Formats: sequence, structure tokens, C-alpha cells
Amino acid sequence: MEIRLGIVGLGTVGQGVLELLERQGAFYSKSLGLDFRITAVCARGEKALARVADPACFKTQDPLAVANHPEVDVFVELAGGEDAPKAWVEAALKSGKHVVTANKALLAKHGAELFPLAAARGRQLLFEAAVGGGIPIVRTLQESLIGNDIEGLACIINGTCNYILTQMAVNKESFADALADAQRLGYAEADPTFDIDGWDALHKVSLLASLAHGKYVDYRRLTAEGIRNVSALDIRMAEELGYEVKLLGVVERAPSGESAGRILAAVYPVLLERAHQLASVQGVLNAVYLKTSAAGPLLLTGAGAGKLPTASSVLSDLIVAARCDASSSAGANAFFSAGNAADLLSIDELETEFYLRLTAVDRPGVLSKVTGILGDHGISIRALSQKPEHDAENVPVIILTHTAKNLDVMRALAEIDALDIIRDRTRVLRFYK
Amino acid sequence: MEIRLGIVGLGTVGQGVLELLERQGAFYSKSLGLDFRITAVCARGEKALARVADPACFKTQDPLAVANHPEVDVFVELAGGEDAPKAWVEAALKSGKHVVTANKALLAKHGAELFPLAAARGRQLLFEAAVGGGIPIVRTLQESLIGNDIEGLACIINGTCNYILTQMAVNKESFADALADAQRLGYAEADPTFDIDGWDALHKVSLLASLAHGKYVDYRRLTAEGIRNVSALDIRMAEELGYEVKLLGVVERAPSGESAGRILAAVYPVLLERAHQLASVQGVLNAVYLKTSAAGPLLLTGAGAGKLPTASSVLSDLIVAARCDASSSAGANAFFSAGNAADLLSIDELETEFYLRLTAVDRPGVLSKVTGILGDHGISIRALSQKPEHDAENVPVIILTHTAKNLDVMRALAEIDALDIIRDRTRVLRFYK
Repeated sequence: MEIRLGIVGLGTVGQGVLELLERQGAFYSKSLGLDFRITAVCARGEKALARVADPACFKTQDPLAVANHPEVDVFVELAGGEDAPKAWVEAALKSGKHVVTANKALLAKHGAELFPLAAARGRQLLFEAAVGGGIPIVRTLQESLIGNDIEGLACIINGTCNYILTQMAVNKESFADALADAQRLGYAEADPTFDIDGWDALHKVSLLASLAHGKYVDYRRLTAEGIRNVSALDIRMAEELGYEVKLLGVVERAPSGESAGRILAAVYPVLLERAHQLASVQGVLNAVYLKTSAAGPLLLTGAGAGKLPTASSVLSDLIVAARCDASSSAGANAFFSAGNAADLLSIDELETEFYLRLTAVDRPGVLSKVTGILGDHGISIRALSQKPEHDAENVPVIILTHTAKNLDVMRALAEIDALDIIRDRTRVLRFYK
Repeated sequence: MEIRLGIVGLGTVGQGVLELLERQGAFYSKSLGLDFRITAVCARGEKALARVADPACFKTQDPLAVANHPEVDVFVELAGGEDAPKAWVEAALKSGKHVVTANKALLAKHGAELFPLAAARGRQLLFEAAVGGGIPIVRTLQESLIGNDIEGLACIINGTCNYILTQMAVNKESFADALADAQRLGYAEADPTFDIDGWDALHKVSLLASLAHGKYVDYRRLTAEGIRNVSALDIRMAEELGYEVKLLGVVERAPSGESAGRILAAVYPVLLERAHQLASVQGVLNAVYLKTSAAGPLLLTGAGAGKLPTASSVLSDLIVAARCDASSSAGANAFFSAGNAADLLSIDELETEFYLRLTAVDRPGVLSKVTGILGDHGISIRALSQKPEHDAENVPVIILTHTAKNLDVMRALAEIDALDIIRDRTRVLRFYK
């Protein structure tokens, strides 16, 4: 059976897809009876278009011409961008094509329109490559774990941040130096904001939360804290306490009480016990840890980005699309619609233990004032340590709390940071268990 | 759509399947449009049969009556046993039913007949639960990684052995004590041979090797070494060197030379560097580590056995069978046929570094004799240590070799163990990198 592909975007991932189709084509043909042929391609510039050698292939710089092309069965969107591709994907679905995309920003922002459209048209909208690069997390959640409730999920889902934190921990580098390293190696963009402030991770977490709970989770209603404010000192302190600092995407469902069943999804840096399976995920690796109701705890670790890992996930979607079993993820796709929105809990409601690093003047009475304010907000202290430092104007005070509500801690810190004895904004890390 | 299930076996896993169908039934019906109904069931004894409450359900103690039952769409084999279920599965396939099984022994032994039969009849023979319990490794290999060559695979796939080795390492227990512990906790059978001698792992490894390479790998042609001969002393020595001892299933494809493309699959205890991702897999957990050509290294960790994890995998297969896309793994299934046998390399050809623990008399000239024999077989020594011990008749000598061929090492050890200065059979562990 011939499957005609229309590809938009021949950048890194697009080239990876061409490479894998080349390598695996004979196998797909022989073992699966699937003959992939690229019948239309769109890229910026003649040089990129020349990568597809077939003279019969329609070449254009207009993505819509591919989306609307009558001789395309599967539309493969690898151009990126969070708004422009929406119209292409819509056109492709409306003209009866399956769609495969690696674009998490597009889906996070417009998925609530695109997935119902795909379901209505009986077409596939597949996105294994959009979350976790080469890790098969989408299919695992959609298919393999379909006998389970997902009770909780924690993920290291942004390689840039994990690389930076790993460098800071291993080489005792500052955040700025580690970021510069990451930029030099191509792991971070020139403008790293999207990664280091947690937005990339949040897009992915919203997709994972939707898949895990069968309800639409809008990333615009979630909180992201990045790693910009994690200092070498925090990492050293965490280490002394037996913890690693990681940027985690966390999805949890309130198990009981008045919030029972509501979903909390967020991205923030955490302290992870060194023995936790996620703590040893180093460098640009990604990992997803699932707490499932039947299968138990499950961990998937692998390359979260890169040309071939991402292309590998695109290929797995191409096979699914080629088999054209429109039913196979229609159920899951229908989850992503505004009419099926998840009942979200704000991060205000998060209950966990906190690591607080205050920067105080070395003066009598400081600790009693600070602990007094914490006590007023019902926050009880598990450990407190004040390290002797050279600079009496800038003394770090580390406070570990017992389980407390995020909102209470934020309110207490607003008061604490307004004190004249506090010299800098208090740094907050949460624990994850 | 109603899907009629015929279940044989209501032991632990069977009960787990009933429990999950109960829990998830409403969700499958509402979100996927799939209504599962158990129309026939077979178990030993009335008490077990009474677990299915539906009075309309056909109940029998004859598995063939379920396999041949006209009102069954999917035959679910959860009885176990490596020979008896063959006839049931054949009957089910011949009467047009899909088959879901958790039975690795059946598939390892009779898969080369059963898979081609399923393909010929256009029916599914699904077995996610047969390897790795709740870990979705079968679907990951069959579908998610279909854009990859699997260059290598290493797995901790027998929870009993991993539990015993973990206990020996953490609690400094002897093998016998750790085994007794495992038996007390229900992790090991009264007759533990099948697990601790590596046979259970070998069944699973043969299935994984077939899936990974698209060629039939017959377990009867593979080598299994279990953990019976791993001593507390070996684990202590490994620890001092910075290694963990694990029972690994290893599948590799010779990358070059005259054996290029040939497959080596085996089960044996190895020394793993402590930083290796598999080294931290503790207790009854299972893990599969894949070296893939495009997606990079990938690790899946989770519960390798147990009622609900195994049932979770059965459920994911039920969904696939229900969607009835007969094409979806027909390709992979056809791999398992005697006519498509893999070109296997014997473990004789394995090249790796070795850990050898000799038990020698403390007498001048011992080391020169031993090292002389190793040298005669072209085996070069990376490190040698002789520990002072109380018993001069039983001195442990640890030798680490550089990379050497398994056959050469075995030949050298046959000579060494025949020396009158050697008091016990030399223990062999291999390194895995």
C-alpha cells in the first residue's frame, strides 16, 4: 500500500525524517506492506527543497499548498511556530488527511480546536514527537496504560534546564556559566527564556496532563517557575541535605478532601531525594515517572530532543497514520476539547514541604521575627540552619518546612521579604516525593 | 461495540483482569465505545468460577470449550503451562478469535507455530503481559521504535533474581538466606530453579530478541547462566571495584567482522558500573535498556510481575484486539516463524571483559601458573588481587581480564580448574557496558 506524505519543514527534524525513511523504507515495504512516498514538500528556499530528490515530488514554499494537495494522505508538520501552523493543520484535516506533528506549542495553544476537528473528520492528529523526543510517552499513556488511572506524574522534560542543573551540580558552576555552556553546545537558544523559565516544559506538561487524565488541561491556566533563580548555593545546600535539584513537571490528582479528583499541574524546581529514580537522570536526558493505579510506578528515560530521536517518534506516528485505524486514538483525541476541560487546582493549593533560603542581615532577633511570621501562617519548621558567612549583611538562612500549603507560604514570604532585615527575595524550592 | 471475552484461568492474573475490567469498564464504554463482556470462562473448581457473577456467562472446566465457543471474540489465556495451552490457542485462532496471553513459556516454546497461524488467519496473538509485567516493552518495540534498528538490549527481567541480588548486596546476606527471604515473601517459588537458573529470563529474552531483530530467536539455542553460583564474596568484591552484580538478559548484534549482523542473546550475571542506569534497579523491579539507532538509549523501568501490573498489560492488549486492526502487528508476528530464524552467534563468540574468582592454595608459583595458562589462550590481565585470608587452603584470587573471547576464557578455565592447586570451580562474571 502506498502512503503519500506531504512534509512541511526540512530543518533538523525534517532532515531526520528523510534520513529514517531512507534507512527503513525497504523494511516497511517488505515487512509491513507500507510504501511511503513524499509527494509534496514545503521548505524555505531551493537548497532545502533539493533535499527531496524525487523529480515527481511537488515542491513549494507555501505550506497550505501541501495541506491542500490532493495527492497527500498524511500531512507532516515539522516547521514549528505556535500560531501559523494552525491554519495548515486545519486545512489538512478538512481535506481528509491525517496529521503528524512534533509541535507542542501549537497543540498546547490550539489543541482544543484541532483535536475535536480531527475527531469530527475521523482523521488522526498524532504527536508522539511533541513530548519527550524519542521517548514513547504519548503512546504509552494513550494505549499501554489504558487499564490504569494515572495517579501522579513527574517529568524531567526540558533538556536545556536539566543540562544546566547537572552542570551546576557536577562542576559547581554558576547558573550564568552553565547557561553559557549550554548555549555554546547548542543545548540552549540565544534567547533561552522559553526553556529556562519553564514555558517549554509547561506546554509539554499540559499535553501529558490531558493524556493522563482524559480531560483538557489548558497550559494558560498553569504555573511555571523556571530555574533562573536557582543558585549554586541552593544546589550545594540541597546536596548537603542529600537531595538533587531538578526542574520537574508535576501532575497530581487530589486524592481526597473537598478537592478530590481535581488536577494540579505545574512546573517548578524541586529537591529530589538522591535515591529517587528521577534524581539520576543527568544532562540533556528526559524522563517521565508515572504513578499508575495498576501497573505500579513506571519510568521511561531517553533522549528528549535531537534530530533522530524526534524523527524516530515521527516515524512511529507515520506507521499509525498509514494503518489508518482512525479509531485507535480518537478517544484520546476527543479529550482535548474545551468542552471537556479538567477541573484544575491552582498551585496555591499545592501541599508539600518547602526549602526556603532567606538572605538576612546578621542581627539579633532576625530568626525570631521570621519564624514568628511563618508560625502566624500555620507553617511549621522542620529544620533551620544559618551559615556563618563573611558578609554580615547577606547571611543565608535555610529553612525547611513541614508540609504546608503553597498559598500560606507565599503569603508568609511576602511579609518576610518586606522586612528591612531581609536583603534579597527569598528563594523557594519545593520537595518532591 | 460489544467485545465478548473468553477467559481461561482465574488465578492471580485472571482475578486482576476481572478487577480492572470492573474498574475501567465504564470508561472504555464511554470514551472508547468498547463494551467488554465475559461470555465464557474456564477455571478449576466452582469457587473460582463463581468470581464471574454474570449468570449468562458460560462456565466450564474445559479450556477447549472456551477456545471453541462461538460467542467469544477474544480468547484470553491466563492459565500458564508451556504445552497444554498450545492446543487451546490453536483452536481459538482457527475459530477466528484474537488471542491475548501472558504466557511467555508457551510463546517461547511454541511461538514459531502459533504466530504464523495467527498471521495466516488474520488474527491477533498479543502478549504484552508475557514480558516485563506492567512495562509496555512489547508495544514499544513493535510500534514506537519502528523507525529504529535495535543495536543492543539489556534487561533485568526476572524479579526473583534481582530481589535476591539486591538483598545480598544491601543486607550482606548469603545467596541461601536471600533465596529463603524471597520464598517467604512469595517472590520465589518453593522450587526456584526456573527463576534462579535463568530459564524464565531466557524465555523472555528470546521473545525480546525476536521483536528487536524481526527474526525468530529460539530459546533452546541460547545459553542461560543463573545466579546460583554468585556468592556474597563476589558481590563484595564487585562493590569494592565500583560495580553492582545483576542478572542481565543481553541481546547484541555483531556490528562488524565476519559475524556482522549475527545475533547473540543470552542470560548471565554481570558486573555493571554503578553509574549505569540499570545498576540502580532494585528489588523486584524489572527494566529494559535499549540501544537504538535513532531514538538513542532508552530505559523502561517498572513492576515486572504481580497481579495488577500483569493485568494492566493484558488490558492494553484487549483494547488492541477489540479495535481489531488485524494489520497492526501482523508484520511483527510473522517474524516468529521457523522459516525466518535469526542467524545466531553462540555465547562462545561473546567478547567482553571478565571477572574471575579462583579459589587457590596459598603456595608459591600459583599465580605464575594461572597467569601462564591465561596467556597461552591469549587472555590479557587487567588487574589481579589476592586477598589475605584465614584459610591458606582456600585463598580467593580475583582476576579482571581485558576484553577476551568467551570460548578462550572457558578453555583456559578448564585447564586452570584441573590444577591441583585450585580448590574449587572458578567463578565467572562478565562485565556489561
